[in-house]
Amino acid sequence: RAMAEGEVYAPGHLVLESGLTLRDVKLVYKTYGSLAADGSNAILYPTRFGGTHIDNEVLIGPGMALDPDRYFIVVPNLLGNGFSSSPSNTPPPMGRGAFPRVTVLDNVRLQHRLVTEHLGIGRLRLAVGWSMGAQQVYQWAALYPDMVERLAPIAGSARTAHHNYVFLEGMRAALTADAAWADGWYEQPPARGLRAIGRGWAGWGLSQDFYRAEAYRDMGYSSVEDFLVNYWEAHYLSRDANNLLAMIATWQSGDLSANETYHGDYAAALGAITARTIVMPCRTDLYFPPEDSEIEVSHMQAAELRIIPSIWGHYAGGGRDEVDRAFIDAALEELLAA
Amino acid sequence: RAMAEGEVYAPGHLVLESGLTLRDVKLVYKTYGSLAADGSNAILYPTRFGGTHIDNEVLIGPGMALDPDRYFIVVPNLLGNGFSSSPSNTPPPMGRGAFPRVTVLDNVRLQHRLVTEHLGIGRLRLAVGWSMGAQQVYQWAALYPDMVERLAPIAGSARTAHHNYVFLEGMRAALTADAAWADGWYEQPPARGLRAIGRGWAGWGLSQDFYRAEAYRDMGYSSVEDFLVNYWEAHYLSRDANNLLAMIATWQSGDLSANETYHGDYAAALGAITARTIVMPCRTDLYFPPEDSEIEVSHMQAAELRIIPSIWGHYAGGGRDEVDRAFIDAALEELLAA
Repeated sequence: RAMAEGEVYAPGHLVLESGLTLRDVKLVYKTYGSLAADGSNAILYPTRFGGTHIDNEVLIGPGMALDPDRYFIVVPNLLGNGFSSSPSNTPPPMGRGAFPRVTVLDNVRLQHRLVTEHLGIGRLRLAVGWSMGAQQVYQWAALYPDMVERLAPIAGSARTAHHNYVFLEGMRAALTADAAWADGWYEQPPARGLRAIGRGWAGWGLSQDFYRAEAYRDMGYSSVEDFLVNYWEAHYLSRDANNLLAMIATWQSGDLSANETYHGDYAAALGAITARTIVMPCRTDLYFPPEDSEIEVSHMQAAELRIIPSIWGHYAGGGRDEVDRAFIDAALEELLAA
Repeated sequence: RAMAEGEVYAPGHLVLESGLTLRDVKLVYKTYGSLAADGSNAILYPTRFGGTHIDNEVLIGPGMALDPDRYFIVVPNLLGNGFSSSPSNTPPPMGRGAFPRVTVLDNVRLQHRLVTEHLGIGRLRLAVGWSMGAQQVYQWAALYPDMVERLAPIAGSARTAHHNYVFLEGMRAALTADAAWADGWYEQPPARGLRAIGRGWAGWGLSQDFYRAEAYRDMGYSSVEDFLVNYWEAHYLSRDANNLLAMIATWQSGDLSANETYHGDYAAALGAITARTIVMPCRTDLYFPPEDSEIEVSHMQAAELRIIPSIWGHYAGGGRDEVDRAFIDAALEELLAA
């Protein structure tokens, strides 16, 4: 996966919540379009678990809500995703199995420096993200309410629910059950573990309804087993195990109130968000279920719950299905126009 | 786990669907109560995944629907559960990693011999089971409609849905990611893999609502991590890996129509069931969701869908929570009286 197109923001040190410091931290980002003279057209669109700015491009394009002809769209890559500082690209003594725990808050603080100090942006017309991207934009809107004018968390949550945490523990355990992982010091990828996390995620990422409808056939897979091997196992075999584990730890850390501003007061943190918001969970999402979004919306000032009526489960938020993508795009268009 | 109380039915050979023969097959069962002279009070109540007749006793007792003072309750132990013939107790060359694939149909055919030839029972007032127990009683009711007068499948299905199959693949992959499993020829239990399947199952067995309500506290666990270690990991560390895998394969085989009677015609097999039926999925079950039960009920002659309104997910059907247990017990009482 080339990252040639991305730019690198390298502000030096990043002191993490854990107390450790990532030295010479790298935040790879990409921008689309041009910043207006009055700075009014900036959009922040962070990446998801295992994704990069390239994956985010599914929702960016002329004629779409996230139109580079109208907006200046900034896509920062999550720490741990293999582009930004990650176990796979950090030199000793902090790389590989020694990569420190990085939180959603660590990411957002670094992104804030990129956006304000490096890009000179004072306010965001919209902060939008899917999944872990949604976690990041919730954190943004709570920490910097005066900057975030509009908010669109898609299939994500402001705080990682216990069940979601447990699901991730299952994924982590499947990967690390392979002794070849060697606490992160593998020379060859832990293939059994990577296949196991892929096969395990297959049940979680989509929905019961998706499999009942055999929608994997629409994706080009001839059977359940074909889908498991040629989509899920292939996908995870192409990833670095330590990077996956780093991002899982970040995901598990998600809590917009776990900081010095809100001291764990979840309702207060959600209540502090002033952005006009459309929260879009998917009806059939198994780890970010709409019930959690409903609770979060109830604590917010100007938020609407708009459930994606899809059988694609968590994947609905990724815009892989064109009907879901159109649903999301229309909501973003409406939000940006408001 | 003692099996002292169980009796052993050992009819000799069992020719399996796979073509292999389990020689000197053992079906461990237990009966509760006495068979009436006219044979009218027999109930069949097969065991679930990983369970034994001891676990089934949660729904058996004086004053309950399954009252041994009124009924003769037969509980056959599933092949692979460690009591009946299983990888862990079958001698070479068929034990351990060489244990053959055993289907739901194989179990039901063997149970039919136990019930008719050995116990002399000609009809069943009720066939009831939870989870894999439900799979077995569906198969019974379709294959022997003249024998099964009433049917109560609890949190189970007549055919294993694709999504359910995929969930099980994730569990199998987590366990076998541990190279210590050694294709079933381990000398020491594959502890990492057993912990991984336990941690993985934790997300599936209960529901998002269960974790949101922190109901694990009601079970005596002080935190999510305490629940994961002291319930889930402990539970799976106490099991034999090959037995778990054998039962997963049986579960995945579930299809009441995959036999010479119905030739894969799922609707016809369901339609052939004449038993008065109450189908009880749980509202929040993640792998036997109520939508699948609704479809199955729509094909049946005399079935009612009665959804357990619980946050306990799949576990609701096990009667661990007393409200759920009372719900199930009342339905069984009503069904038996009809």
